[in-house]
Amino acid sequence: MKVGYLGPSSSFTHNVAVKGFPTAELVPYETISAVIRSFEDGDVDYAVVPVENSIEGSVHETTDYLFHQANLRAVAEIVQPIKQQLMASRPHEKIEKIFSHPQAIAQGKKYITDHYPQAQIEVTASTAFAARFVAEHGDLPYAAIAPQAAAEEYGLSIIAQDIQEIDENYTRFWVLGETGQEFALPLTAKKMSLALTLPDNMPGALYKALSVFSWRGIDLTKIESRPLKTVLGEYFFMLDVDNSNAELVRFALDELQAIGIGYKILGDYQVYQI
Amino acid sequence: MKVGYLGPSSSFTHNVAVKGFPTAELVPYETISAVIRSFEDGDVDYAVVPVENSIEGSVHETTDYLFHQANLRAVAEIVQPIKQQLMASRPHEKIEKIFSHPQAIAQGKKYITDHYPQAQIEVTASTAFAARFVAEHGDLPYAAIAPQAAAEEYGLSIIAQDIQEIDENYTRFWVLGETGQEFALPLTAKKMSLALTLPDNMPGALYKALSVFSWRGIDLTKIESRPLKTVLGEYFFMLDVDNSNAELVRFALDELQAIGIGYKILGDYQVYQI
Repeated sequence: MKVGYLGPSSSFTHNVAVKGFPTAELVPYETISAVIRSFEDGDVDYAVVPVENSIEGSVHETTDYLFHQANLRAVAEIVQPIKQQLMASRPHEKIEKIFSHPQAIAQGKKYITDHYPQAQIEVTASTAFAARFVAEHGDLPYAAIAPQAAAEEYGLSIIAQDIQEIDENYTRFWVLGETGQEFALPLTAKKMSLALTLPDNMPGALYKALSVFSWRGIDLTKIESRPLKTVLGEYFFMLDVDNSNAELVRFALDELQAIGIGYKILGDYQVYQI
Repeated sequence: MKVGYLGPSSSFTHNVAVKGFPTAELVPYETISAVIRSFEDGDVDYAVVPVENSIEGSVHETTDYLFHQANLRAVAEIVQPIKQQLMASRPHEKIEKIFSHPQAIAQGKKYITDHYPQAQIEVTASTAFAARFVAEHGDLPYAAIAPQAAAEEYGLSIIAQDIQEIDENYTRFWVLGETGQEFALPLTAKKMSLALTLPDNMPGALYKALSVFSWRGIDLTKIESRPLKTVLGEYFFMLDVDNSNAELVRFALDELQAIGIGYKILGDYQVYQI
């Protein structure tokens, strides 16, 4: 079995792919669109892509691609905690420069300011690039902020562990596939993700759409408006709803259609936790 | 008058600050948090920060800071169309490498694939960095994807204009200040941005909150759930509502409070278009 994922091999997406598909052949792609396309083209059996980070928010390259350009679905979700490590080639007496991607720098900022106030911060295009650069300049007093796997990949030592400021940092990953996939991971929920397009001529259409779920007691775990990219100020709406009672949700979808609100199912999945 | 903005000086935020405050002293800051803090600390009279891009979505560093850490408001919004240019030190016969930030690369991808299929793409930390790097290596066949202002800043020539794939690409910027500010720009709307925190023990609380606006015919132009960063699965909700009838909106806020739904006003502003 082949599984496409957003590379490089020290990324969080790679870790999710390994945990989900320990025996599969894993194929890295450089962009999210390329991962999704690899599945559309039949080059891989499953594709693993990030869909939302608790700090940064939705990964719109994923959700917009699924809404606008693809006719496929998430069949499983895996939630991965995000932890950042400070790593160097060896323990230096004084760290002069710290390299990382802006998001990882932001997450480790407080630790760095407290413990390495004199270090110069250098921005890189990815955490993997930062780790590789530090490994390539092993004799210089440099460090990188990157995931654990990057230390293993580039032979660096972790000099400070879990330096991210906010503990509640996790990323949701979607597994795209033809059929649902069960994983040997703790199961936490069943959800459905929908994209709604509301008719212009229906005042309060969003309110009506939500009432379809609300009066049935179906919990909403996420809502977000997204520009339709056609006319300024026109939107579609992404909803995540609890799907533990699938029959109730099916009735809700039927009612949406009956009142003239279009929807596309972006995912129908069980949620697993790493 | 002093106005803080997210630098460097060839950024879109700088252009917004120039258009809004043509005679003010403009002060660049390196991060969004630093811009907002400069205003909180009284170092500047106004601060200009990005809040949402039509393709990338909300700028959570801005909205989360205003929700969690600050007690201040947007007093104006300026909408800036985002256009990307392909620039080089001079017209080369063949472009071997193209440098830019991942977002700008994504936006110009189709043009590059069509016109420079052989060029190698190199990721940089910002579009300004890409333009500076290309300028510093003027004898090499390199190009950068960056805004118009970067070409002026680093003395590069534009070799292909407006290469972004989606025309409907614009960014909303907020002006933080003590008092509302009028600009010599076309006025397009009056809006209020709210962050709602819903009581856990109120089933359908979001639905109730929306009904407060819906039955009064107050249009919702944006809705987004954001993790509260305390417990997994707890959210606050950002709403943008039409504020052309301020009295109606005031009644709606009173009713929210009466039914026990907390809110924070993130902005109360007129919307201007560049």
